[in-house]
Amino acid sequence: MSMSPEEIDEFLAGTRLAHFATVDASGAPRVRPVWYLWRDGAFWFTTRMKARFTGRDVAGGSPVTISIASEERPYRGVVAAGRAEDVGKDEELLTAISTRYGAPEGRRFTASAMSEPDRAVLKMVPDSFVSWDYGSSS
Amino acid sequence: MSMSPEEIDEFLAGTRLAHFATVDASGAPRVRPVWYLWRDGAFWFTTRMKARFTGRDVAGGSPVTISIASEERPYRGVVAAGRAEDVGKDEELLTAISTRYGAPEGRRFTASAMSEPDRAVLKMVPDSFVSWDYGSSS
Repeated sequence: MSMSPEEIDEFLAGTRLAHFATVDASGAPRVRPVWYLWRDGAFWFTTRMKARFTGRDVAGGSPVTISIASEERPYRGVVAAGRAEDVGKDEELLTAISTRYGAPEGRRFTASAMSEPDRAVLKMVPDSFVSWDYGSSS
Repeated sequence: MSMSPEEIDEFLAGTRLAHFATVDASGAPRVRPVWYLWRDGAFWFTTRMKARFTGRDVAGGSPVTISIASEERPYRGVVAAGRAEDVGKDEELLTAISTRYGAPEGRRFTASAMSEPDRAVLKMVPDSFVSWDYGSSS
């Protein structure tokens, strides 16, 4: 019922959103939808390390868990967890993440994001990775 | 850019999934997609209080945050947080939650769920509620 590596790549190549969960300074869960890119065995995200709660949680040391799911039957999904590493404000990666969700919109986003001092790309290599496909017979 | 009460009701009446985040016993975030029902100013979910990590986190006292989003532009979404209260194994509520996602599948689900000793309906009245509609001019 879990997906094969090829099925995972195909599923994650879709223009879905990742629901990105952290733990805030008070110990409460935080979650919000974010863009992602799945490349080279890692998830890549973008946020701002000061102007966004998500980035502040990561900067404060919170581990990260993400949930990505199809909204139609047969349900397919991925839940992955790990540490998110700030790899800086990389224009190629910002473009690769954002243009998955529309090329002109992504280019406009990247041009604006490059001017934000705290804009960052986060890399998460999953420590745990669960997938499911309720339409699969395996 | 936030939604009106009527727009929130319409958005949440869609057969979307809620990404349900808790904090586990080690202090790490957990998140997974779940069915929900929005009724009477509360979110209603179903889980198992022992056989599911989500239920165990709630039983252990974790607060809950949920994220529900459209995957297409213009992006719309809701993030809400609060305490989830176990209101027991109520057949009407189980049916109301599950048949939103397909009537025959929901009825089969409910028949099976009623036989699970730790099956529960969770009620969450949001303490905080944020909505957005990037396609709105307001």
